[in-house]
Amino acid sequence: MFPKIKKIKNQVYLDYAAATPLDPAVAKAMRPFLTSEFGNPSSLYKQGMEARTAVEKSRKTIAGLIGARVSEIVFTAGGTESCNLAILGIARQMTLDKKIYKRGSKRPHIITAAIEHHAVLHPVESLRQEGFAVTVLEVGAEGKINPDNVINAIREDTFLVSIMYANNEIGTVQPIAEIGKKLLKANQARARKRLAPVVFHTDACQAAGTLDINVQRLNVDMMSVNGSKIYGPKQTGFLFVRTGLYIKPLIYGGGQERNLRSGTENVPGIVGLAKALELAEELRNKEINRLGRLQQYLIREVKRIPGVTLNGPEPGASSQYLVRLPNNINIAIADVEGETLMLYLDSYGIAVSTGSACTTGMADPSHVLLALGLNPKQAKSSIRMTTGRYTTKQQ
Amino acid sequence: MFPKIKKIKNQVYLDYAAATPLDPAVAKAMRPFLTSEFGNPSSLYKQGMEARTAVEKSRKTIAGLIGARVSEIVFTAGGTESCNLAILGIARQMTLDKKIYKRGSKRPHIITAAIEHHAVLHPVESLRQEGFAVTVLEVGAEGKINPDNVINAIREDTFLVSIMYANNEIGTVQPIAEIGKKLLKANQARARKRLAPVVFHTDACQAAGTLDINVQRLNVDMMSVNGSKIYGPKQTGFLFVRTGLYIKPLIYGGGQERNLRSGTENVPGIVGLAKALELAEELRNKEINRLGRLQQYLIREVKRIPGVTLNGPEPGASSQYLVRLPNNINIAIADVEGETLMLYLDSYGIAVSTGSACTTGMADPSHVLLALGLNPKQAKSSIRMTTGRYTTKQQ
Repeated sequence: MFPKIKKIKNQVYLDYAAATPLDPAVAKAMRPFLTSEFGNPSSLYKQGMEARTAVEKSRKTIAGLIGARVSEIVFTAGGTESCNLAILGIARQMTLDKKIYKRGSKRPHIITAAIEHHAVLHPVESLRQEGFAVTVLEVGAEGKINPDNVINAIREDTFLVSIMYANNEIGTVQPIAEIGKKLLKANQARARKRLAPVVFHTDACQAAGTLDINVQRLNVDMMSVNGSKIYGPKQTGFLFVRTGLYIKPLIYGGGQERNLRSGTENVPGIVGLAKALELAEELRNKEINRLGRLQQYLIREVKRIPGVTLNGPEPGASSQYLVRLPNNINIAIADVEGETLMLYLDSYGIAVSTGSACTTGMADPSHVLLALGLNPKQAKSSIRMTTGRYTTKQQ
Repeated sequence: MFPKIKKIKNQVYLDYAAATPLDPAVAKAMRPFLTSEFGNPSSLYKQGMEARTAVEKSRKTIAGLIGARVSEIVFTAGGTESCNLAILGIARQMTLDKKIYKRGSKRPHIITAAIEHHAVLHPVESLRQEGFAVTVLEVGAEGKINPDNVINAIREDTFLVSIMYANNEIGTVQPIAEIGKKLLKANQARARKRLAPVVFHTDACQAAGTLDINVQRLNVDMMSVNGSKIYGPKQTGFLFVRTGLYIKPLIYGGGQERNLRSGTENVPGIVGLAKALELAEELRNKEINRLGRLQQYLIREVKRIPGVTLNGPEPGASSQYLVRLPNNINIAIADVEGETLMLYLDSYGIAVSTGSACTTGMADPSHVLLALGLNPKQAKSSIRMTTGRYTTKQQ
């Protein structure tokens, strides 16, 4: 039933949204800290101080790249932990901080969206089970959030808005800067009514390396980024937490990361993360253009196949920003099982995915595709191809 | 005021309890997963399956080494996270699980000890602030816990005992197997009264590589181990969770690690951790003897210096087990500031520490030394020397 594909010698990896290889320059930066430079950054002698210097230099690099202060960067073990720290951290602080939230209702309120990653939806769900109120914003057929819908969903007892910057399955880019600006205005009005401000978190794990992640221009209070999607090491990441915002840690202990993430710092991982973000920012404009052209070519070609439709928005730029990540293509193919096609392509050395890697292997259709209005059958007949730094047109 | 020391060319690293260098064999095992083998273990194509295989092979290795089932190993990002997952995980489950804990008091009760690491004491403290009741067992001058005191502290509403296997500052080894056996008996009596069993967690971060960490012989329900103390990678670790015991995760998301630790798996880290534990177990008996002889020699020598006393127990073995880690020496030196001495030795290339690395740099005296009965001045005039795989008598 599938067309014959000429066997190819080399692997064609089209799942950069699931995992990116380590950039050789990142591996090189990490190497000394995997061998001779092994000190504990909390130790005060030479080996410890060297490790501390490496960690703090990395923090400075990252802060500079996103327009933050060094004290606003909290290193975590990955993007999922960063999102959890943001959401559970503010929620736990909120329930404790009776002074700020003196009008605190019994069901404090969170706003998020239907197409968020499980790293956001699942901690929010655990809070809902604890008694928090949650509004999950619907998205249109293109997976886009209307900023006005965010503002309209705010209640007196809302304390958190968490909206992802770019979607991992369909590549939709949300107007984070616009939401940030409107929230700022809404918070000014709240201040006049002596209501605590609504905190704005964005999961930028799929956005880093492609979109502008300057926290001042975005007007976000918290932002999650991870290393393994930007050619950095796995289980590395950071959370930006704006000065003046207090959150509770998930993990208690030696008090590292200004008490927000205890545990001996992953020195090679942190060094690798900073190097990866530095490279990603350096190559960003070039890669957007290159991958954007590749995307247009691929979409044109796959659409010629009968029964194929594009999931998510047509790529292209609005006046202000990209509407779809230039490395993302997600298509539904009538009457074909996505998983079967994926395994078939794998036998030819081509790696694509059905939905997000994190839920691959589960029987459920993608919650993101269902949120776009696809039926379960259509969702299950979809595959995602994501290109990256080492993808060429020849492949 | 300090004796002259001949300047030495090479560094003498005597802080293996703070950080161990990566064993070259561990670095070698990790290398492919830092370069070509970068797939996401949740992906179903070739690169993903290879990563999954590496993770599951590592899990099998570790399970085999500690006498556990593969499904009982949860990979985490470090020892601190493992301890937090154990303590906060069971506490959160306990408050939710009305069925098991139907007699649940309003202040469910935890038993721990005064000389635990902050990775245990601080999450316990956060629970105390939430309303849990806590008994902190006192220790004698040698830092030892009497198993009968653990049993006597148990109340109807006790749900957790967390006692560390070996102390990071003074090397005291606790009779975990004996406590485990007595708890088992106490739990049998509780079952007859239809009371939920008391769960037994041990922080074995300093014990792995030196002591027997077979979970069946120890009779523990949960055990935390980390990589960076056993010549493995930083921010890697695991928690053993006995079958039938349910705990809540700290971090929610894609559902990795049987829903107990979401986030893309740190494939190179996990592979390195397994290799490190394998090597540590292989070298264990040889290293205990070698470092034990070195310890006896060093203790004899430092005791000849006037004003020096040993903190913690005299090394040696009881009939059943070691009473002090053979790599640990902690001494108080009358009228000398530990931190000043440490910096002085550092200038000669000798790395020692004051207290635990995690609290180094803080002005407070060590909570462990205070628990032994030292006064703050004595505690602050103490230094710790910990030897390891690359320490020689010549140094």
